[in-house]
Amino acid sequence: MRAELVSIGTELLLGQIVDTNAAYLAAKLAEIGVGVYFKTTVGDNLERARLALEQALARSDALVCTGGLGPTADDVTSEAVAALTGTQLVLHQPSLDHIQRLFHHRQLPLLDSHRKQALIPSGALPLPNPVGSAPGYILELRGKLIAALPGVPSEMRAMAEESLLPYLAERTGGELVIKSRVLRFAGIGESMLEERTRELFASENPTIAYLAQPGEAHLRITARAASRSQADAMIAAMQQAVLERLGEAYFGADQDTLESAVGARLRQLGLTLATAESCTGGLLGDRITNIPGSSAYYQGGVVSYSNRAKVELLGVPSPVIAAHGAVSAETALAMAGGARARLRADLALAITGVAGPGGGTAAKPVGLVYLALDDGVHPASRELRLGGARQEIKYRSTQVALTMLWQYLGSRG
Amino acid sequence: MRAELVSIGTELLLGQIVDTNAAYLAAKLAEIGVGVYFKTTVGDNLERARLALEQALARSDALVCTGGLGPTADDVTSEAVAALTGTQLVLHQPSLDHIQRLFHHRQLPLLDSHRKQALIPSGALPLPNPVGSAPGYILELRGKLIAALPGVPSEMRAMAEESLLPYLAERTGGELVIKSRVLRFAGIGESMLEERTRELFASENPTIAYLAQPGEAHLRITARAASRSQADAMIAAMQQAVLERLGEAYFGADQDTLESAVGARLRQLGLTLATAESCTGGLLGDRITNIPGSSAYYQGGVVSYSNRAKVELLGVPSPVIAAHGAVSAETALAMAGGARARLRADLALAITGVAGPGGGTAAKPVGLVYLALDDGVHPASRELRLGGARQEIKYRSTQVALTMLWQYLGSRG
Repeated sequence: MRAELVSIGTELLLGQIVDTNAAYLAAKLAEIGVGVYFKTTVGDNLERARLALEQALARSDALVCTGGLGPTADDVTSEAVAALTGTQLVLHQPSLDHIQRLFHHRQLPLLDSHRKQALIPSGALPLPNPVGSAPGYILELRGKLIAALPGVPSEMRAMAEESLLPYLAERTGGELVIKSRVLRFAGIGESMLEERTRELFASENPTIAYLAQPGEAHLRITARAASRSQADAMIAAMQQAVLERLGEAYFGADQDTLESAVGARLRQLGLTLATAESCTGGLLGDRITNIPGSSAYYQGGVVSYSNRAKVELLGVPSPVIAAHGAVSAETALAMAGGARARLRADLALAITGVAGPGGGTAAKPVGLVYLALDDGVHPASRELRLGGARQEIKYRSTQVALTMLWQYLGSRG
Repeated sequence: MRAELVSIGTELLLGQIVDTNAAYLAAKLAEIGVGVYFKTTVGDNLERARLALEQALARSDALVCTGGLGPTADDVTSEAVAALTGTQLVLHQPSLDHIQRLFHHRQLPLLDSHRKQALIPSGALPLPNPVGSAPGYILELRGKLIAALPGVPSEMRAMAEESLLPYLAERTGGELVIKSRVLRFAGIGESMLEERTRELFASENPTIAYLAQPGEAHLRITARAASRSQADAMIAAMQQAVLERLGEAYFGADQDTLESAVGARLRQLGLTLATAESCTGGLLGDRITNIPGSSAYYQGGVVSYSNRAKVELLGVPSPVIAAHGAVSAETALAMAGGARARLRADLALAITGVAGPGGGTAAKPVGLVYLALDDGVHPASRELRLGGARQEIKYRSTQVALTMLWQYLGSRG
């Protein structure tokens, strides 16, 4: 089956929002042996959407459309599908009931425009939306297949996983499976990763590829096989070969993140954590608490954006700030010590720096950041000189702070 | 002129890298009056690239292709253009000289594969590459235009600005300019926005369109005019008509964010702010400190993830938590009061809730969130019942908290 992704939305066409749905769908379709060869993006315009669908359908066996299922007049996907296939839009009562319940539960008024979301092409198989209001659907016609999913990523993913992908896997059963796994490394650069795995790069199946991300290095293993289990076994063997060469820098695969890896180690060791943040403003705490269940180890933190907050809430001695400045190893260590004591945690991580664009000096330029990790025995600090814009400096600071903590936990594990 | 963007590259098709070129080109082409109605993405495959170009050319006047001009065997753009148009690829000697000079300067060996980059379709106008090696080109044939630019963003942008855009502007001289502005609203749903501006939706020039984002509603005004200044005037008039209907919910345009709007009002009023966060874990502070210069008004905050942190760092009375629970209006108000006092700020914003997926009960389900805003005179709280996954609940909580603060500041302004 040759599939084509059709993304419908003017914001996508004009690049005002990034099409993460397409990347997700391409990867998931590959896993069930459905190759994606084209992607078309078209704006919220009925006639152009219809034309885009028509031309895509001419060169592909299946279209997976995302977006344009909302309640407003410029949501045109279903009308375009109906116009192209010569079907009528009909009310799907269970979907309308679902929308009514949802609005009742959220105590919002149901407008006429919302009823429009329960209209689907006659003959289509409705796909329930467990997360939001609009149903999706699959329409099979003259040997071709058109699937329509909402553009909101959480809704699209839930419907793809629960309905669309199982349906397509069933329908294409027996084709070649392509599976990938991304191995994630911290504290090692992309070139070092490449150097240490050079002889594996020649492998034709599974293949390996390198991907760089801020403060991380990724290696993707891709296997083609007759079945999922065979692909899994090929990936597992290659993963073992990779980890023999650089296992110490490996922290997780696929959806794992540094914050989830750190969280798992903290749990395992039964340790608690506190944070003290200055230039990152709460981003470190935000990332740590993105992990479900983080309250088991994360006690909380202080965002000491002002010097007064550093002194009063964290107990940083004023003379330390006066002598070394708020952006210094000494202040970072005092912040970590204060957070550890006041939040009664086993470990505390502190960040202070100049995120810019203003506020830099010759001695303390934009991008200068100090980290500290206090375990009550051997407090350690680290100096970073980062490039990039304000938000990149914030993100990279938290990335190195989490790497520092992860390496520390590894040495204790 | 109806243009279509054609992005060539397997990594783009599979979403492994984000197509920033397309967003850039769509905006720049609109500014010179060239509308972009479709975007096609295709992998590094000669036959499929040719087919994609053929179908795109059938529905558009001009194709702007990016990518696939590199030296390797899977760079197929020029071969596809030649196959489609029935032209030959010929050596462009000045481009080869440029490539040779570049490699000599960089002290790199010139391989045969690099010579391939100097081959362009016969009859095409070469576009010099001031940044890298591969030239681009413009081929005009049978009333249609095909432009090919490299995929590396810095090279693509330099060539677009120096050569392609001036060429197209000259060629379409006298055609329309298209300009857009996005108006951003908070505290109002997309359907309400649509309802209150329904009669404006009929306008054909400028047009309006609705865009939904978590906790915000956007309205885009797009004007077509003979000049930029005329388009600006049309947008300003439509903006006035929109704001007459729902000005109270308007917080900014284009790149403005709720956190930048709140920051500007705090500065204007000379007020300082503190935060107390539980379920959002620092995200509110992170967003506030994404604004350069936020240290002028943001004092800092406490991430009181544990009950003990609420009591010890924010002074929330233990009996309040015992009687009402950590997730309650009473605790939110006590958190805000504590943050205001301890961080010595004029205003404090507090968030406590159940972000899930675990931790919910019948009485306090996942998605239940309490906000409080304390100005030292009339502390106010608000209850939210949010849907979505953990990170969405966190984000929406900060979104409504910022809206609450922004509305409060408006009432004082």
